Amino acid sequence: MKLKVKNFNWLAGRPVVILNHETAKALNVFVDDRVEINSKRKIFAVVDIFENLVKTGEIGFSHEVSTVLKQKLNSKVEVNSAQISLSGRLIKKKISGKRLTKKELNIIISDVVHNNLTEAEIAYFVAAEKLKGMSQKEIIFLTEAMIKNGNKLEFKEKIVSDKHCIGGIAGNRTTPLVVAICAAAGLILPKTSSRAITSASGTADVIETISKVEFSPSQMKKIIKQTNACLVWGGSLGLAPSDDKIIQVERLLNLDVESQLLASIMSKKIAAGSNRILIDIPYGKSAKVESKKQAKELASHFKQLSKHFNVELDVVLTDGKQPIGNGAGPNLEMLDIISILKQKPNRALDLEKKSLFLSERLMKLSGIKNSKQKAKQILASGKAFEKFKEIINAQNGKNNFDQQIKKLKLGKFKKTIKALKSGKINEIDNKKINSMCKILGTPETISAGAYLHKHLDKVKKGEPIVTIYTESKDKLEDAIKFYEESKPITLE
Amino acid sequence: MKLKVKNFNWLAGRPVVILNHETAKALNVFVDDRVEINSKRKIFAVVDIFENLVKTGEIGFSHEVSTVLKQKLNSKVEVNSAQISLSGRLIKKKISGKRLTKKELNIIISDVVHNNLTEAEIAYFVAAEKLKGMSQKEIIFLTEAMIKNGNKLEFKEKIVSDKHCIGGIAGNRTTPLVVAICAAAGLILPKTSSRAITSASGTADVIETISKVEFSPSQMKKIIKQTNACLVWGGSLGLAPSDDKIIQVERLLNLDVESQLLASIMSKKIAAGSNRILIDIPYGKSAKVESKKQAKELASHFKQLSKHFNVELDVVLTDGKQPIGNGAGPNLEMLDIISILKQKPNRALDLEKKSLFLSERLMKLSGIKNSKQKAKQILASGKAFEKFKEIINAQNGKNNFDQQIKKLKLGKFKKTIKALKSGKINEIDNKKINSMCKILGTPETISAGAYLHKHLDKVKKGEPIVTIYTESKDKLEDAIKFYEESKPITLE
Repeated sequence: MKLKVKNFNWLAGRPVVILNHETAKALNVFVDDRVEINSKRKIFAVVDIFENLVKTGEIGFSHEVSTVLKQKLNSKVEVNSAQISLSGRLIKKKISGKRLTKKELNIIISDVVHNNLTEAEIAYFVAAEKLKGMSQKEIIFLTEAMIKNGNKLEFKEKIVSDKHCIGGIAGNRTTPLVVAICAAAGLILPKTSSRAITSASGTADVIETISKVEFSPSQMKKIIKQTNACLVWGGSLGLAPSDDKIIQVERLLNLDVESQLLASIMSKKIAAGSNRILIDIPYGKSAKVESKKQAKELASHFKQLSKHFNVELDVVLTDGKQPIGNGAGPNLEMLDIISILKQKPNRALDLEKKSLFLSERLMKLSGIKNSKQKAKQILASGKAFEKFKEIINAQNGKNNFDQQIKKLKLGKFKKTIKALKSGKINEIDNKKINSMCKILGTPETISAGAYLHKHLDKVKKGEPIVTIYTESKDKLEDAIKFYEESKPITLE
Repeated sequence: MKLKVKNFNWLAGRPVVILNHETAKALNVFVDDRVEINSKRKIFAVVDIFENLVKTGEIGFSHEVSTVLKQKLNSKVEVNSAQISLSGRLIKKKISGKRLTKKELNIIISDVVHNNLTEAEIAYFVAAEKLKGMSQKEIIFLTEAMIKNGNKLEFKEKIVSDKHCIGGIAGNRTTPLVVAICAAAGLILPKTSSRAITSASGTADVIETISKVEFSPSQMKKIIKQTNACLVWGGSLGLAPSDDKIIQVERLLNLDVESQLLASIMSKKIAAGSNRILIDIPYGKSAKVESKKQAKELASHFKQLSKHFNVELDVVLTDGKQPIGNGAGPNLEMLDIISILKQKPNRALDLEKKSLFLSERLMKLSGIKNSKQKAKQILASGKAFEKFKEIINAQNGKNNFDQQIKKLKLGKFKKTIKALKSGKINEIDNKKINSMCKILGTPETISAGAYLHKHLDKVKKGEPIVTIYTESKDKLEDAIKFYEESKPITLE
C-alpha cells in the first residue's frame, strides 16, 4: 500500500511509524506490529497508532526512519505488514528446541542492535534461551555476535584488567575501591558499570553522585590514558549494545537467564579490551546466586568460556548472606567508599576487607607479585585515595573532587530503628533491604537509602540497627510500614 | 517523581505515556517499560519517548490514561517506574515450570484485557505455555478466564450451533456455505470469523467483499433473530477479547501453541452462546496440523475440554493435502461460494462436497434427522442461496445483494501458468499458495489471488494450471518469480 510521508522527527529509540486506525486496519496491523517500508532502501519499523497526527493514507516517520529513508514530505512509499523476518524464523527454530549456528545467532543479535526486533520477539528469544537452554557452542557464538555487533576498545598495553560482580547484595560497592587500588598499582582498568536494575543503586549511580559518568569511547580512552582507569557508565559506549536491549526485556520479569548472563558479562569485558577478568560470585539465600553449588557451576561455565576467548579469568565465591558495607543508596555508598579511602576509624571494615581481597586477586591475575601486601599498602598509604581523586577529577575535567564530596548529603526525613530486645541479628535479607531502598526513592533520590549500624552481630536492647533516609515524608512512612511487615532484619 | 500532566488524547490502543529522554532517564525507564501513575486512581502505562511533545518534568497521556485518571492540564501526578506486576510474577512462575491456579490465570487474562501487560510480557506467557505445557486443568481455567473477561451472548433457543476450522488450507471457504445450509435448516448460528492471519484471506475478509462485517453484540443478535445466523467479524464484539491480544503476539512468530488454540476456540464459541460445536481439523504436510496422529490428539483434547463446559462437540478430520475450492483470495473465494449456491456447472465440487459433509455433521450434532439428505436438498433447491442472500441483506441493512456481487471483479494484471509437460499434479502446497497470494496483495487487495484450474489431477502439456490476479504489475512479476522459485505446484 502506498502511503504519504510525514517526517515527525521525534526520537523514538527505534524505528517507529505512526498510522491512524483506518490505515492500520487496511494494512492489517496493530500497535507494536511491524511494517516493511520500501523506497530506495528497505526498513522495518514498529507501528504506533495515533488518531490526530496523521490522516488516512499517511504515515508518520520517527527520526530513526527519516534518517535512513530520507523521504521528502508528502512523497510516497510502499508500506506492507512485515512477514516474519529471518530472525523471527530463527527464534522460532530455537523455541522448537533446535541449536542455532554462529551465523544464525549473528543475524539475531545484529537485528537486536538495529532495532529490527520488537521487545516481544526478544522476549521469545530470552524465553527460548531460558527454557531450551544453550549449548556451550551457542553461548560462544552468542558472545562473539554480541562483541561483533558493537564498538571495541583496544589498548597498547598487553595486560588490561577488569572485575565484575554478579550482584544481588545490598551495598557491596567494592568496584570503586578495587579500581582505585589496582590502578594505583599500575594496572589498566577500562571499568564500565551499569545503573541500578534491582538493587538500591548501581556502581554508575554511586559514581554519578560526584562525577560525570557518560562518555564516548574516545573520551573514555583519554581518561584511562591519564589515570590508568575509569569508572564510567557502560550504557553510552556502544560496547556489546545488544546486551542493553536484551537486559531491558529480561528485567520485565526479573528473569535470570544463565546463557545470557555469561554472554553479557564476557562480551562487555572483551569489547572493552580486557584480558584479565575477575568474577565475584556472592552466594547466599537472599543473593542472586542462592547456593554454593550453583555458584560453583556458574564459575565453571565462566572458566570454560574464557578459554575460548583467550582471556585469563579468575572466579571468587564470596559470602553473600548479608549486605556488605554500611550504606545502601547512592550517597550512602559513596560515603562508605570515601571513609575507607580516607581510612577513617568508623569505616565499613567488611567492605574494606572484601575490596582488598578482590584487589589482591585481580592484581595477582594480572601478574603483580606480593599482591596481598601491595593492596594493603596502597590503601593504607593513601595512594588509593589519591588515585580515586585523580580518576574523578579526570572524569569531571577539573580538580573539583573536594567540592563534589561536600555535596554528599543524606535525606532530610529519617528514622532510626532500634533493637526491641537484646540478642543476635540472624538475618539481613538483601532483597528486602533493596526493596526498602527503592521505596525510599533510590536510585533517583540519591540522598535516600539505608545505613546499617549492625551486621550479623550481637545487639543490646535499644541499640540502633538501621537508619533510613529519604526526601519525602510519605516515602518514609511507606518504608517504615514495609520494614514492619516484611522484616528485612531479624533478631534471635 | 512528580510530573506535570499533558493530555494528548490520542488513541494508542493501550495506556501509553510520553516522556522526553531526560525525564525517562531520571525515572530509569526505557521505551516500552511500564510506569505506575498514582493520583486518585492507580494505573499502569507503557512508556514512549518523544523529544518534542513534552518538556522535562512533563508527562503526556494517551486517551486511555486520560479517561481513567481525569487529570487537568498541568496538574501533577506521582510517577514511578513500575515494579514487576503480580501478573509478571505469575508469568515468571509459569516459566519456572509451576502450575497456575484458576485465580492466577484469571489475574493474567484480566491484565491482558485491561492492557496492563506489554506485548513482551504476553510473549513470555505464550512461550511458557508452549515450552512448559499446560495441564488439562490449566487449559480449563484459562478458557474460563477468557470467557469471564469479555462479553457474552445468550439466546433463548436451546440449541445454538457453530463450526470452526483449524485452518492452514488455501481456499477452503466452507463457512459461508455451512452457515447458509444449516440456517436454512432452522439452526441458530452466531458465526464469528477472523480476518486473514497467515492465509490469503479469512472468512471475514471474504464476506466483507459483499457485506458489512463489523457489528456490536446487540446488532449481531438482531441479525440472527431475523435470519437464524450471521457471518460477522469477531474482532469488534468483545467476545473473549484477551484472545485477540494473545493471537497478535503469537503471530509475531506464527507460533502454534496448542493450549492457547484450544482455549481460544472454546472461549470464543462459548462466549458467543454456542453449545453444539463442530471442529474441522484438516491435516496434511502443508496444513497447520501435519499428521493424522497430531489431528487425533488435538481432537481428543477438544473433546475432553467440551465435557467440562457442557457443550456437545464433534470433530472431523479432513483431507488437508491440497487447497479446497478453486479460488484463493477474497473475491475469488466469494465467486466460488456464489457458484456453488447458484449450482453452476463449473462450480468447485470439492468445496461443495466438503461443505455438505460439514453441514450434515453439524445438523446431526444439533439434533436434525436425515441430515445428509436434508443438506443436499437445501443446497440443490436453492434454499441455501436464499438464506445466504437473506443474511447478507440483513447485514447490509438493505436488499442490495445483486448489486454487491456485481462488484466481484478480478485483478487487472493476470497471468495463467500452463503445464510444461503432461503428467499428474502430485503436490499443491497450501503454505506456498498462501504466500503467493500475499505477494499478489491479499487480503488488502480483494481482487488479487490465485485460481486453480486443476487440483491433484492429470494434466496435459499446455493446459492451464493456475491463473494469478493482482492490481500491480510489480506484484505480478514478484509472484511469478516466487512461483518459479518455490514451486507451489509440482507435476510428476
